[in-house]
Amino acid sequence: MRIDWVPEPEPGPGTVKIAVEWCGICGTDLHEYFDGPIFCPAPGKSHPLTGASLPVVLGHEFVGTVHSVGEGVRRIRLGDRVVVEPRRSCGQCAACTSGRYNCCPRAATIGLQGGGGGLAQYIVVDEDLVFQIGDLSAEVGALIEPLAVAHHAIGQGPRPQGATAVVFGGGPIGLLVVWMLKAMGASTVCLVEPSEARRSRAGRLGADHALDPTAYPSTERMLEYAGLSDVDVAFECAGVEAALQGCLIAVRPGGTVVNVAISGRPLSLDLTPLLLKEIHLVGTICYANDHQPVIDLLRRYALPVETLVTKRIGLDQLVTAGFRALASGDENHVKILVSPTMTQPESE
Amino acid sequence: MRIDWVPEPEPGPGTVKIAVEWCGICGTDLHEYFDGPIFCPAPGKSHPLTGASLPVVLGHEFVGTVHSVGEGVRRIRLGDRVVVEPRRSCGQCAACTSGRYNCCPRAATIGLQGGGGGLAQYIVVDEDLVFQIGDLSAEVGALIEPLAVAHHAIGQGPRPQGATAVVFGGGPIGLLVVWMLKAMGASTVCLVEPSEARRSRAGRLGADHALDPTAYPSTERMLEYAGLSDVDVAFECAGVEAALQGCLIAVRPGGTVVNVAISGRPLSLDLTPLLLKEIHLVGTICYANDHQPVIDLLRRYALPVETLVTKRIGLDQLVTAGFRALASGDENHVKILVSPTMTQPESE
Repeated sequence: MRIDWVPEPEPGPGTVKIAVEWCGICGTDLHEYFDGPIFCPAPGKSHPLTGASLPVVLGHEFVGTVHSVGEGVRRIRLGDRVVVEPRRSCGQCAACTSGRYNCCPRAATIGLQGGGGGLAQYIVVDEDLVFQIGDLSAEVGALIEPLAVAHHAIGQGPRPQGATAVVFGGGPIGLLVVWMLKAMGASTVCLVEPSEARRSRAGRLGADHALDPTAYPSTERMLEYAGLSDVDVAFECAGVEAALQGCLIAVRPGGTVVNVAISGRPLSLDLTPLLLKEIHLVGTICYANDHQPVIDLLRRYALPVETLVTKRIGLDQLVTAGFRALASGDENHVKILVSPTMTQPESE
Repeated sequence: MRIDWVPEPEPGPGTVKIAVEWCGICGTDLHEYFDGPIFCPAPGKSHPLTGASLPVVLGHEFVGTVHSVGEGVRRIRLGDRVVVEPRRSCGQCAACTSGRYNCCPRAATIGLQGGGGGLAQYIVVDEDLVFQIGDLSAEVGALIEPLAVAHHAIGQGPRPQGATAVVFGGGPIGLLVVWMLKAMGASTVCLVEPSEARRSRAGRLGADHALDPTAYPSTERMLEYAGLSDVDVAFECAGVEAALQGCLIAVRPGGTVVNVAISGRPLSLDLTPLLLKEIHLVGTICYANDHQPVIDLLRRYALPVETLVTKRIGLDQLVTAGFRALASGDENHVKILVSPTMTQPESE
């Protein structure tokens, strides 16, 4: 990864040029840096939809203001604060034509697979991917993309209003799922997370319980102890075997387990509870028509931004104060925001 | 296991005494004999609902005629040919009160966990578990219990009419799922099964394709070759890892995988397709309100009994010509029916 000058993009017909205010660092970005290329197309292997290959501009969790617009753009106006749904799909496959465009096998994520990225001063995107966020703050805006992931995951389960839920894993997505479940009216939400630093944030996000799985002899005992062995829905946001197994133990007969975290390797699972309780285990990927509902929700329920944004840095600090800080296992960080114009960290 | 004289049961109030005509041997019975006790309560460990412990009378796939009825029985009459839904549940737990009585953790299966069994001349059961089958043959009747398992499994997926489906595993349940999918209007049904003997039956049961997974370099290639890599629903009836993985590969975005076979041990699974295609993986156990729909279906669509019933034996031949024949891996057998009155095998 390098910080470099690239040609400034200019808007063509139907596109919008955005001056980026903040861009969040996602776990996916870290994987690309430390273990990649994974989603980024390797040099010579151009992406089937965008034709791009490395180097690409990174960053897909961004917010900014409209700098200029191309011919034919009507809905979006200069100066609007906006976010972007950073995925394009082929529009022709079975997934796309059935409304599941997020499952399109040729889908391309902006900031990973071509089309620019949010870790830059400017980006140009198609108007239909742009959402106005009105008077929501830029920092709230920078969280809308991961909030859309959480919203889509919740939508794979039963109606949250009045539901009981357990969330395994208190990383950024797990914490956002906790907050959103409560904002959407869940009656009881419990976070299961070994890190004390992460558990301590759950209460400020509305969680009714935050449990340390290492403090109990088994997942079964932990859930029984907390009276949580029969919840309506469980979310696997940890990417570890024990968490997915815990979800299967936690839910009631006919309950739903939403698998949010991609583990990327085979998991050893005892599916007996899936059969005996006729559990629905369902996967979730990205978002589809979730950005506007998230924006509407943020207008009604204040997101405790300071609980989630733990550091703000400039682009020149990206690797040291950003990627390496997150990868060091420092659990005091949730989301680090990057400003493409700041040249010194605002806070450490 | 022993063949022995036990006291002849007599019907009390609200119960029905059935003279058994045929009782099928189920894979569960084999597991109890060769590896058990599993479901059968070990001596001294009485079942929480029935109070029974070993020895118990085996057999839960039975058909017979009504011999006599207890006081207050109105619906069932002497001489009726009947089958039994051989499970009782507690009626009080969250599963029972939500209509999922098949998921009751205290449920007891007749013929495994007390309440008599079908591998006997007579059995007495509560009237509400008894279903009249009219003029359906006794042999068709003996298949209604496994057909109810298949019907319930199909009910966990999308509406079968017009659907495309793959069934992994051509044992008795897999073959019955194939037949029932077609009877319920599925447009394309494919059986995946390494045994040629089992595959050969699939066509007679209505399957559009029967594929040998060992003849292809990978499940992906097999499904692609047959144009089956995007079906609406897949059924795992084999109890092996590769089959469940194959189901995840086979279904379309938003498709359903129904896990029918209990493997009883942890499986190593790559759940990446579950996430990227937002698949619903759902478990199924026994049946709940499935017997009457199965009986209604059997009145409309003739079941090719001779494709499924591969042997008829007397009770005195149970171990040698029944259990051992099935456990020997002889794939020419699907369902062996036992007559509690015959004393010599009718056919080999």
